[in-house]
Amino acid sequence: MNDVKLDILFHRRTPEQDDRERLICERCGFVDYENPKIVVGSVATWKDKILLCRRAIDPRDGYWTLPAGYLELNESPETGALREAWEEARARLEIDQLLATYAITRISQVQLIYRARLITPEISAGPESREVGLFTWDEIPWDELAFPSVRWALDHFCQTRDQPTFAPLGQSDAGAGGL
Amino acid sequence: MNDVKLDILFHRRTPEQDDRERLICERCGFVDYENPKIVVGSVATWKDKILLCRRAIDPRDGYWTLPAGYLELNESPETGALREAWEEARARLEIDQLLATYAITRISQVQLIYRARLITPEISAGPESREVGLFTWDEIPWDELAFPSVRWALDHFCQTRDQPTFAPLGQSDAGAGGL
Repeated sequence: MNDVKLDILFHRRTPEQDDRERLICERCGFVDYENPKIVVGSVATWKDKILLCRRAIDPRDGYWTLPAGYLELNESPETGALREAWEEARARLEIDQLLATYAITRISQVQLIYRARLITPEISAGPESREVGLFTWDEIPWDELAFPSVRWALDHFCQTRDQPTFAPLGQSDAGAGGL
Repeated sequence: MNDVKLDILFHRRTPEQDDRERLICERCGFVDYENPKIVVGSVATWKDKILLCRRAIDPRDGYWTLPAGYLELNESPETGALREAWEEARARLEIDQLLATYAITRISQVQLIYRARLITPEISAGPESREVGLFTWDEIPWDELAFPSVRWALDHFCQTRDQPTFAPLGQSDAGAGGL
């Protein structure tokens, strides 16, 4: 499909054999299922330092975050996490394992955050970052983190740092916003 | 929002400061980001038996599957997996840990499959199942499984059966269809 002309009258009601309201077009019967969105990202390290990006876009312009963003169509979560690290920090990573899953249910967002290693320490700010940096634990700008989930991921990274494999950690239904 | 009337002319082009084509309304500038969908499900056991459901709906009506389905808005993946087990098999579960993540990139689907235990062995077919059953490994109807990812999840369950914790397994970009 390239151009799509739509003349739609959406009404919110429960389809037959369903148990919750959906957006349904009264003209053609099309059901527009609304779905949670997936954010993929990483806690990526070079030796004992962690990659952070200072945001150049809203929300939370000027605050520090992990390289992360929305998973694209036809993309695996691991590939998406690598892409985001490249786009935001020009960083080349290799994924180690899934660090954590966070459900930000208020905004219907599921985050898949990976533990990863930088292949080289060369990094630079992509278009959505003001600057990027590699921080030891004590150097992390804790008071200038963009989102609660950045803090969760850093804490979970610290907690599992010495474990070669582990079950991913999680945090569900915290009231605060996502990445 | 309850009723929504839309008069939209979608055109597929690349927004400024983006690097891929999106559906954009030429009347109002609205960008309709298309996102991958999340399927949540479980390999749930009662003692040495695994819960399977024989589908009563297309696709793959009549074939056996794990309790799984699309994550709903404002729902955590774990809650969604529990809901699906109830809807499809009237089964009450407790989640153990994330067993595997599967990316079916061809159809932009990410599956999060949990290892879980039945709280009681009482099960019965929900509206989307012809029948449900608890199967030992040797009793599983291997030739009548609905989707390749059912086989992957069963194999990954078997592989990690005796491990109290483990990193989730995965399978990306396999050509075959999702749950």
